[in-house]
Amino acid sequence: MNYKKLGKILGKIMILEGILMLAPLLVSIVYKEEAKYKLAFLVPIAALTLIGALLQLPKPKREVLYQKEGFALTAMVWIIMTLFGAIPFVMSGDIPNYIDACFEMMSGFSTTGASIITDITKISHSILFWRSFSQWIGGMGILVFVLIFIPESNEGSSMHLLRAESPGPQVGKIVSKMKVTTRILYLIYLGMTVLEVAILMLDKPIPGYEGEQFFFSLLTAFGCGGAGGFSFIPGSMELFNPFSQYVMAIFLILFGCNFSLYYLLLIGKVKAVFKSEELKAYFLIVVSAVALIFVSLVWRFEAFSQVYTVEESFRHSLFQVASLITTAGFSSTDYNLWPILAVTTLTVLMFIGGMAGSTAGGVKVSRIVIALKGGYINVRKLINPRYVPKAKMEEKSLEEKTINDVFAFITLYLFILIAVVFLLSFDPVNGQMITIVSDGGAYEVRHGFFSNFSATLACISNVGPAFEAVGPYASYVEYGAFSKIILTFTMMLGRLEILPVLILFSPKTWRRR
Amino acid sequence: MNYKKLGKILGKIMILEGILMLAPLLVSIVYKEEAKYKLAFLVPIAALTLIGALLQLPKPKREVLYQKEGFALTAMVWIIMTLFGAIPFVMSGDIPNYIDACFEMMSGFSTTGASIITDITKISHSILFWRSFSQWIGGMGILVFVLIFIPESNEGSSMHLLRAESPGPQVGKIVSKMKVTTRILYLIYLGMTVLEVAILMLDKPIPGYEGEQFFFSLLTAFGCGGAGGFSFIPGSMELFNPFSQYVMAIFLILFGCNFSLYYLLLIGKVKAVFKSEELKAYFLIVVSAVALIFVSLVWRFEAFSQVYTVEESFRHSLFQVASLITTAGFSSTDYNLWPILAVTTLTVLMFIGGMAGSTAGGVKVSRIVIALKGGYINVRKLINPRYVPKAKMEEKSLEEKTINDVFAFITLYLFILIAVVFLLSFDPVNGQMITIVSDGGAYEVRHGFFSNFSATLACISNVGPAFEAVGPYASYVEYGAFSKIILTFTMMLGRLEILPVLILFSPKTWRRR
Repeated sequence: MNYKKLGKILGKIMILEGILMLAPLLVSIVYKEEAKYKLAFLVPIAALTLIGALLQLPKPKREVLYQKEGFALTAMVWIIMTLFGAIPFVMSGDIPNYIDACFEMMSGFSTTGASIITDITKISHSILFWRSFSQWIGGMGILVFVLIFIPESNEGSSMHLLRAESPGPQVGKIVSKMKVTTRILYLIYLGMTVLEVAILMLDKPIPGYEGEQFFFSLLTAFGCGGAGGFSFIPGSMELFNPFSQYVMAIFLILFGCNFSLYYLLLIGKVKAVFKSEELKAYFLIVVSAVALIFVSLVWRFEAFSQVYTVEESFRHSLFQVASLITTAGFSSTDYNLWPILAVTTLTVLMFIGGMAGSTAGGVKVSRIVIALKGGYINVRKLINPRYVPKAKMEEKSLEEKTINDVFAFITLYLFILIAVVFLLSFDPVNGQMITIVSDGGAYEVRHGFFSNFSATLACISNVGPAFEAVGPYASYVEYGAFSKIILTFTMMLGRLEILPVLILFSPKTWRRR
Repeated sequence: MNYKKLGKILGKIMILEGILMLAPLLVSIVYKEEAKYKLAFLVPIAALTLIGALLQLPKPKREVLYQKEGFALTAMVWIIMTLFGAIPFVMSGDIPNYIDACFEMMSGFSTTGASIITDITKISHSILFWRSFSQWIGGMGILVFVLIFIPESNEGSSMHLLRAESPGPQVGKIVSKMKVTTRILYLIYLGMTVLEVAILMLDKPIPGYEGEQFFFSLLTAFGCGGAGGFSFIPGSMELFNPFSQYVMAIFLILFGCNFSLYYLLLIGKVKAVFKSEELKAYFLIVVSAVALIFVSLVWRFEAFSQVYTVEESFRHSLFQVASLITTAGFSSTDYNLWPILAVTTLTVLMFIGGMAGSTAGGVKVSRIVIALKGGYINVRKLINPRYVPKAKMEEKSLEEKTINDVFAFITLYLFILIAVVFLLSFDPVNGQMITIVSDGGAYEVRHGFFSNFSATLACISNVGPAFEAVGPYASYVEYGAFSKIILTFTMMLGRLEILPVLILFSPKTWRRR
């Protein structure tokens, strides 16, 4: 391991995190918050800058990073960013427990949106801002962000970093120059975020929060952009006006699309966009899911406590489908009380996730499509052992290696899911009754298998809220410290798509050479 | 498709099913049952023999079967056997609904043991016998059974049939001659079954069922041998004495072992047996699971209604672990009321299943081991892209194709699981409260996501009883016809390990050539 070079890059990233923390510090000043909030950001900023600068001193013997170093660095960056990013939560006293704070921070950077906060009204503006901002930073990947600011880093190394962090299997590159690509993607990301803020500002303010419209619009856009889903008022997005909910749903679906499609649109290759198989599959899933849930809510063939008008049924169906397939995890109503058909559909969406190359988590639509094609090829090979598959994906021939990688990925995803559900079942919270108060009334729910299962799925797929005792109106606070640490790692595993994190646990990675 | 040759084999199998049905007919005579029971068997016996004989008339142009034909035939055999095997249930009036009867029959042949019978005391001896006997027939595979009786069928065709039906990935053949192998395996199977019956006969009879000891011992051994799990008195095995429960647990674990290991034992290769990696993994899982559940029951760190003595805790832990990892599905107590840790452990066991080459269902221990090795190789390759894996399995080098096949299998298993859970969520039973009366008292449980999820897992893994509203003291009767048909196919998919069933749905299979 080229520790000196790794340290150098890590140091730069720490300095960058310090710079990013100036934003919530500014919020703290604007809102004239108590001194402890300013201190809560100033101390980590100072620490990050100092350590970051010290790490620049040693001269590495080798400038190039090997693949394993790139991957290990990626995972380490996320851990270091989380450990330092959590300091303001603790120092401000808003989240006094450090494990809780790390959970919340990783939840932000990994764009999960799972929260341990029980009373959001007690959290200050600066902390709310840092929390939501972290989702936006994490959305495009911390390292993608960093690449823009590290001009001298060589192309090969950057490639390894990007590969470790970019979501979904690689299907084509946009522009050959890495740095240009990254900047274009970030500009698109920034542009869409600004547009969403602007449109949200057109809405009437939420009653009781009249002065907060710009702040809320900004935080909402951060959450949609990064597909995070942190809320900042009680009941997630329940109090938002229908207009804002529709706007959010549409932007969520847009942020769940592969960003290279927007680039293609920008350079006028409209036809190529509409030919995208993944895009078609994505929209097919979204439309079918909305239709199905809408029917299940309107028809009400199953006894459940939520009663909606037809417009509400449609809006909530659209909102929840958009929110869960993009793995944001916002809620406009208590979908915990929906019919099992709707609950099952949403659970499947959480597993699928958005498109590759978007800010969404989950297995990714392209992997599902590739796996289905792979399954079909296996059946064909049984029918005729000499069958030579000529499957295509996005008009390129689908190689066997790609299919096998997807099968391996889904198997590992499942194994990690099983392992984490199993570990969570040791938690003393299991079997306890949890009281939940939502727009569907107050009810008791037992913390059972489905709570752990959906919590794990929500963390590995970076959704956030799950079902049952960890539903949209509950929080992760009831879990013990061990479970919270496990779930924190699970969020990272999901965001970095497993292998870069597993690499950290191999002693072979740390061998000097 | 060589329809004439397929028809010929199918016909022979139908005649064989007719012969097998003579056994319950005999039971009906011995127990002096009403005429309708005798008729219920005589009519399908006559039909099977007649159609079977007619199918022998056409002369096929080609004697050899292609791979696709072998696979398609395998799936068709299971369907035909089920459709005819269900007739006695309906004609006797014990299971009046034909869909229910087919569900029950497929559950038997696929050694699932899922039942739609609500009051088992109303079922006659002959029907109980046929139901339990079908598990024993299905245990080693219907076609393996058939191979013994079709002397002229050529080696190549038999190979295809066996490949389609034998559980688990192929790791080594015992004896080069197919037919010899099959006979040896069946003798071992028969011997172990007889031994179990003999040992069970040593126990005191169950109070209230004094005259039934031989009948019950036979049916119990059928259920253990085939890893089926049909019960024949209320409360599954709850009323059985501890001695019988221990005997069953041990035999279940033995029937969950790869049968070729017994062959190795018989020819004195004891060392080779103890070197088996799969065997070690299997016992490691069994011992850890028993220990874990035992501790969770004794410690009682979670509020639940079942209170056991230490001996009972150990016995029930051992019994349920043995019953669920071998995917039999017998129960000695209501494990639905156990702590979530125990419930989760049992659910994971249902997924894993027994060893390859045993009568158990599930993904199989060897596949789990291979997948874990494959995952490790993937991590190593990331660390060093030039890494050449030299992984071994059972002392043979583990080829990349084997690993990829396992990844593909697990992915397809998961996809089918998801699809079936989704389809079940359409059932009107969802959200309804079901009352369950068990040794833990009477309680209400809502038919929710976990009910469908565990039901699907229990069917695809050929376990039978699941959790929540389809737990050990409930039945599948509450599901609608559509769900029952889906679950019937799911049991077959699990038993034939997916691909031979999927082959039926491809139009390419049915093309003449």
